[in-house]
Amino acid sequence: MSATIDVKQPVVTLINTFTVPADRQEELVRVLVDATEDVIKHMPGFVSASIHRSLDGTHVANYAQWRSREDMEAMLRDPQAREHIGRAGELAEADPVLYTVAASIRVERVWASG
Amino acid sequence: MSATIDVKQPVVTLINTFTVPADRQEELVRVLVDATEDVIKHMPGFVSASIHRSLDGTHVANYAQWRSREDMEAMLRDPQAREHIGRAGELAEADPVLYTVAASIRVERVWASG
Repeated sequence: MSATIDVKQPVVTLINTFTVPADRQEELVRVLVDATEDVIKHMPGFVSASIHRSLDGTHVANYAQWRSREDMEAMLRDPQAREHIGRAGELAEADPVLYTVAASIRVERVWASG
Repeated sequence: MSATIDVKQPVVTLINTFTVPADRQEELVRVLVDATEDVIKHMPGFVSASIHRSLDGTHVANYAQWRSREDMEAMLRDPQAREHIGRAGELAEADPVLYTVAASIRVERVWASG
């Protein structure tokens, strides 16, 4: 599965950055994946969620796309979603910010090996 | 142009979150787009950069993909890249974190209109 970042895509993007003790990082990744698979992906307006673990163990980031701000806010009010979000909140400090894509720059190249 | 988030893609992801005064947000977006177009996209290992503006005006996020951690760190040491990064640093407080993708969940649906 994959997600696409594109200025032309009609979505809003919630980037939620979690600060987590390194020994709870994998547990938080699991909580976020389960919340997405079990509840959030079935909600109106969900487009994608990509869960990232930091190389240093101290952060987890969820890059999530929704059809609209209203759909994303309805999710935040849903009792089932709130239960999962509460579980993540017990493990880590969340810093959610809602964005739109201003520009996406990509280079296609073939890299020489070695 | 677009970027793809995929667990199978061999990249590291630098999510750099900037906290910015609302009246400087567009200037910061411009600085980051220019830095990427003029310098950074030409560097070894650059894959993509997607610059986001927050709906509330207080943040900018750069979701950037590199072939390897070493390539990304070499960019941070490059004098030309550092000049651009310094300009962004004059406008905003940066919080860069390096990640790998743990999971990406996407739902393909056709939405009824209205």
